[in-house]
Amino acid sequence: MNINGVHIDDTFAEAFGMKATRVLVTAQNLKWAYHAANAATGFATSVIACGCEAGVERKLEPTESPDGRPGASMLFFAMSSKELAKQLERRIGQCVLTAPTSAAFAGIDGGEPIPLGKNLRFFGDGFQLSKLIGGKRYWRVPVMDGEFLVQETTGMVKAVGGGNFLILADSRPQALAACEAAIEAMRQLPNVIMPFPGGVVRSGSKVGSKYQALMASTNDAFCPTIRGITKSELAPGIESVMEIVIDGLTDADIRGAMRAGIAAACTLGAANGIRRISAGNYGGKLGQFHFQLREIMG
Amino acid sequence: MNINGVHIDDTFAEAFGMKATRVLVTAQNLKWAYHAANAATGFATSVIACGCEAGVERKLEPTESPDGRPGASMLFFAMSSKELAKQLERRIGQCVLTAPTSAAFAGIDGGEPIPLGKNLRFFGDGFQLSKLIGGKRYWRVPVMDGEFLVQETTGMVKAVGGGNFLILADSRPQALAACEAAIEAMRQLPNVIMPFPGGVVRSGSKVGSKYQALMASTNDAFCPTIRGITKSELAPGIESVMEIVIDGLTDADIRGAMRAGIAAACTLGAANGIRRISAGNYGGKLGQFHFQLREIMG
Amino acid sequence: MNINGVHIDDTFAEAFGMKATRVLVTAQNLKWAYHAANAATGFATSVIACGCEAGVERKLEPTESPDGRPGASMLFFAMSSKELAKQLERRIGQCVLTAPTSAAFAGIDGGEPIPLGKNLRFFGDGFQLSKLIGGKRYWRVPVMDGEFLVQETTGMVKAVGGGNFLILADSRPQALAACEAAIEAMRQLPNVIMPFPGGVVRSGSKVGSKYQALMASTNDAFCPTIRGITKSELAPGIESVMEIVIDGLTDADIRGAMRAGIAAACTLGAANGIRRISAGNYGGKLGQFHFQLREIMG
Amino acid sequence: MNINGVHIDDTFAEAFGMKATRVLVTAQNLKWAYHAANAATGFATSVIACGCEAGVERKLEPTESPDGRPGASMLFFAMSSKELAKQLERRIGQCVLTAPTSAAFAGIDGGEPIPLGKNLRFFGDGFQLSKLIGGKRYWRVPVMDGEFLVQETTGMVKAVGGGNFLILADSRPQALAACEAAIEAMRQLPNVIMPFPGGVVRSGSKVGSKYQALMASTNDAFCPTIRGITKSELAPGIESVMEIVIDGLTDADIRGAMRAGIAAACTLGAANGIRRISAGNYGGKLGQFHFQLREIMG
Repeated sequence: MNINGVHIDDTFAEAFGMKATRVLVTAQNLKWAYHAANAATGFATSVIACGCEAGVERKLEPTESPDGRPGASMLFFAMSSKELAKQLERRIGQCVLTAPTSAAFAGIDGGEPIPLGKNLRFFGDGFQLSKLIGGKRYWRVPVMDGEFLVQETTGMVKAVGGGNFLILADSRPQALAACEAAIEAMRQLPNVIMPFPGGVVRSGSKVGSKYQALMASTNDAFCPTIRGITKSELAPGIESVMEIVIDGLTDADIRGAMRAGIAAACTLGAANGIRRISAGNYGGKLGQFHFQLREIMG
Repeated sequence: MNINGVHIDDTFAEAFGMKATRVLVTAQNLKWAYHAANAATGFATSVIACGCEAGVERKLEPTESPDGRPGASMLFFAMSSKELAKQLERRIGQCVLTAPTSAAFAGIDGGEPIPLGKNLRFFGDGFQLSKLIGGKRYWRVPVMDGEFLVQETTGMVKAVGGGNFLILADSRPQALAACEAAIEAMRQLPNVIMPFPGGVVRSGSKVGSKYQALMASTNDAFCPTIRGITKSELAPGIESVMEIVIDGLTDADIRGAMRAGIAAACTLGAANGIRRISAGNYGGKLGQFHFQLREIMG
Repeated sequence: MNINGVHIDDTFAEAFGMKATRVLVTAQNLKWAYHAANAATGFATSVIACGCEAGVERKLEPTESPDGRPGASMLFFAMSSKELAKQLERRIGQCVLTAPTSAAFAGIDGGEPIPLGKNLRFFGDGFQLSKLIGGKRYWRVPVMDGEFLVQETTGMVKAVGGGNFLILADSRPQALAACEAAIEAMRQLPNVIMPFPGGVVRSGSKVGSKYQALMASTNDAFCPTIRGITKSELAPGIESVMEIVIDGLTDADIRGAMRAGIAAACTLGAANGIRRISAGNYGGKLGQFHFQLREIMG
Repeated sequence: MNINGVHIDDTFAEAFGMKATRVLVTAQNLKWAYHAANAATGFATSVIACGCEAGVERKLEPTESPDGRPGASMLFFAMSSKELAKQLERRIGQCVLTAPTSAAFAGIDGGEPIPLGKNLRFFGDGFQLSKLIGGKRYWRVPVMDGEFLVQETTGMVKAVGGGNFLILADSRPQALAACEAAIEAMRQLPNVIMPFPGGVVRSGSKVGSKYQALMASTNDAFCPTIRGITKSELAPGIESVMEIVIDGLTDADIRGAMRAGIAAACTLGAANGIRRISAGNYGGKLGQFHFQLREIMG
C-alpha cells in the first residue's frame, strides 16, 4: 500500500486497556484556563514514570462550557482505577484548585463516578458549601480570590492506551514537518490525546535491555545512526523516524485518529522525503487491541 | 508605606532552604524546545504533592545555547538532594529524551554534580557513545530521530523556596491584572521561577485544619466570601486576593523578584482597585529566610 | 434591563452596508498559515485610513480545508466593490503569494466573482498553468519554494459593517477583562470579525471636531478623565469604557455576535465592576442597520 | 566556501537607502501591546504596495520601557521621509491610538524628529493636554478607556532596506526548517526586521516581465518546478528555495543579521537537505549597498 509515494507497512499498532476520565476546567479567560490545564496535564507522557498519561483534548468555547466561561477539556489515562483517582486528586488539587479564577467540572456524565471535588472540598476547612443542581452535586470552596467551584465527581470509563504509528523520513526536519501535520489533524478529533511533548516521541523503545535493571531500551532497529552495527529495519536514505502515540476513549477513537494523522503525514508525501509509515507492536501478545495500518487506511 | 495608593503591609514572606538545579534544553526550533520544557516542568507547583517545583526560567537564544540552537532554561527545586536527583531523572527521561530533536545540557557549571545523562545513557542499550569536550562529558544516545545529545551531569546548588507576596484588590479581574503585570516583570529576572499555574496561586493555605488528616487548609483569614463568619484580615471592599510564590537560587534573587513584582503590581495602583500588598509567613518559626516587604520596597 | 447587575441601555448600534469577501489560506502548518493571514489582515481596523477592514474569522482544520492542510479563514470588508477588489489583490499579493508553502482559495462560492488569482497569476511571467476542477478554475504559479496554488476568483457579497457595543466599567482592568470575555465568545461565531487590535477599540469617536480639518474626534461624552469639563454620559465611578466593533456578512450575524459578546461581558457582572452596556449610533440617520440592545438581549 | 556541507555562493545581496523610525508601544500587559504592534505593522511586507515595510523588532521588558509597562518595539521603513511620516501617522492612529490601554513613545532619540503624537493629538478635540518631561513633549489625549499618552515626535534616521539571502534545499519542509532557524537567530539582534510573513518570502522576483504592465515577475531561474523550461540556476535535487529579506538601521546591522541567519540555517546542514546559500541582486547597479556572502561569513 502506498499513499502519495509513502509506503504503508503491513503491520499493526498494539494497544492496551486503560481507565480514563475527562475534566473540564474554566477560568476568567482562555489564557488562565490553559495555564491550569497545561500544569495539570504536564509531566504525563507515560504511565510508567509519570503515574498517568494526560493532555488537553481541546479548547472549550464559552457557549459549551458548564459555567459559560472559556475553558479546556483534559483527558487522563491510567492503568488502574486506583491510580487514576490518585493522580486526578493530586493534579487537580495542585494545578486547578490553585489556579486563579478556575472552576472544574465533570467531562463524562456516565461511567463510574470518581472523586473530583469530593476530597478537595476539605481544603475549605469546613467553610465549603454544597449545592445540588439538576441532580449533580457541586462544592463551593472558599479561596483567596473568591470561590473554587468544583463538581463532586466525574465519570471514569474503560479506555485504550498506546495506539501509535511511526513516520520514516529522509531527514529530521521532514519527519518533524510530517508529525506537525499529523498532530494538527489529530487535534481536531474528540476523545484522544497524544501524550508526548508536542504529541511526538522520538525515543521509541523495545522491551528489554542488555542492562538487566532496565525493562526497556532504545528501539535500535529503528535508530538510523547505528544502522551499520545492529539489525536495522531502516532502508538506506532513511535518516529520521518519529512516533505518535495515541490514547483514546475507545478503539474507534484511536482508529480515527490514526487515520487522520497518517493521511495528514502523507500529504507531504515522498516529494518531501516522507518514505514510510509503520507501527509499534510486541508481536501481538501483550496488548488486547491491534490496529492494522492497511485496514485503517483502506 | 504606600506605593501609588497601594498599602504595603509591615510584614514578611517566610521562605525555606531547598536544593536546585538548572537544565538547558535545545531543539530544532523554539516551539519544540518549549514542548519539551513545558512537559518536563509541568505538574510541579509544590514539592509536597509533585515531588519538585519547576518552571521555565527563560528563553535561550541560539547564540547563547550550548549547541547554537534555540532552547529553554529550566529550574528545578526540591527539599533534598536525593529527591531532586530522582525528579530530574524522571522528568528529563520522560519529557526531554522523548522530545523530537532535543538535546539537554548542564545549566549550572559549579555546585555539586548530579546525574543528567549519566543514567539516561543506558537507554542506548550499549550503543551510546561518550565524548569529552573541554573537560565535560557528553553522551550521544541513539534514538529514532537521530541522537539524543546529553551532558553527563549538571550542577546542584543550595537555593531558596517559598518567597511570596499577596495582592489584595477590589475584584478578581483587577487582582488578576496586577498579577499579570507582576509576573511579566518577574520573568525578566534570572535565577527565579514562579511555580504555580501562570505564576499565580489563589488558594493560599494556613497550617492545620479542622480535619485531622489534613496538614493544611484554606487561609480563611484571606478568603473574601467568608469574611462574615471567620476572623478576617480583609477590610471591606477587598473581594479578591492572589499570591505569587517565588523559588530562587539565592535570597538576593528572591528579593529582586519580589521588588520587581510588587512594583509592577503597584503601577496599576489604587485607581485600578489594587489596595494592599501583604505576604505569607508562619510567624517566622519555620523558614530560615525572612523577606520584609517594606525593606525590599524601601 | 439588567443582566447580572449590568445595566443595558435602551439604545442601538447603527451600522452600514458594505461589500465583503472571504479567502481561505492554507500552508504546511498552522503557524505559517497564520503568518500569512495575520499579515494580509493587518493594518485593517477601519476603512477610512486602511482601505478595508479585515480579520481572521477562524482556524481552518485540515479536514475542512480545500487542500487538506491546516489554514485560516479571512474576511475582508470595504465600502465598494472596487475598493474591495483593489485591497484584496494587494493584500493577497503582498502577504499570501509571498508566504512560504501557502495556497489561497475562495471562501464564498456564490455571490459576485472577484479576482483572487486572476491577476496575481501574471506574476508567473507566462509559466503559470491553469487547471479546472469541478468547474472551478485554479492557477499554479511557479515560485521559488514550488508552486503557489490559487483559485481564480472568490465570491463577493453584500455585508454589514459597524455593529458595536460599549462596555462601561469601574476601572481599565475590569473593562479589559470584560472585553476579553466578549471577544472569546464572539470568536466562536462564523461570518464576523472584530477588526480593531485584539478586537477592541478604546478611542470611540463622534462626528466632527473643533478643528475644521478633522471629520471625527474623541467621543468626549464617554471619556472619563474629562467628565468635569464636558457634557458627560458617564455616571460617577465609571472610569473606563471600551467598545467592540463588529463587521458581519449579514445583520443576523452581527446580532448573534452582539448577543454572545454582551452576554459574556455580563458574566463578569457588577461584582467585577462591569456597570453598563451601551452602543454607538449617529441618531439613526446615517446607517441603514439599527441593532437595539434590549431587543437583542431580550 | 562551505559551512556544514552547505555551499555559500560567491555573490552578494544588493540593498537600498531608506528612511526608518522606531516606535515603542506599551500596554497593560504584553498581550495587548502585541495586539497593537501586530496591527500597526501588519500588511507591511514591501514598500511598493504597502507604503512601508514594518515589523516588531523585539519585546520590551517593563524595566526598560518608558512607562514601566510591558511593550513592543516597532521599526518602520519607507523610501522617503514624507511617505514614512504619512504611514506612521496612519498606522499609529489606526492601530495604537485605538488599542485598549496603549501608550506610544519615541524609540529613537536623535535623528530628525517626525510627528508621532503631534498630529494625532487633535483627536482629543481640544481636551488634549501637553506635558514636558526632561525636555521631551508628551500629549495626554482623552479617550474612552482613560488617556492615550503619546510622545510628540520620534526620530527618523537613514537606513538600509533589502538585505537578503536565499536558502536552497532538497524539499520544502527542509527549506522552511532552515528559515525558522535563521529567523529565530536573527530576531535576537537589534535594529533589524524581516518584513515578510513570519520573516520569509518564497516568491522572489526578477525585474521585468513578459507582460508589459508588470515591473517584476517570478524569479524563474530559481523556481524548481519550471527547471526544464527556463534557464535555471538550480542543480538537480534542489526542490525548494526560500528568501529572507532584512531591513536594518545600518549596513552593519544587516551584515550582522545575515551572518546570524546564514549560520543558523547552516546548523541544519547538508545532512538535513540544506544545499546552498545564495543572495539576490540586480547586478550591483541599482542598490548602493552590497553584502558579499563570503566576506560576511568569513
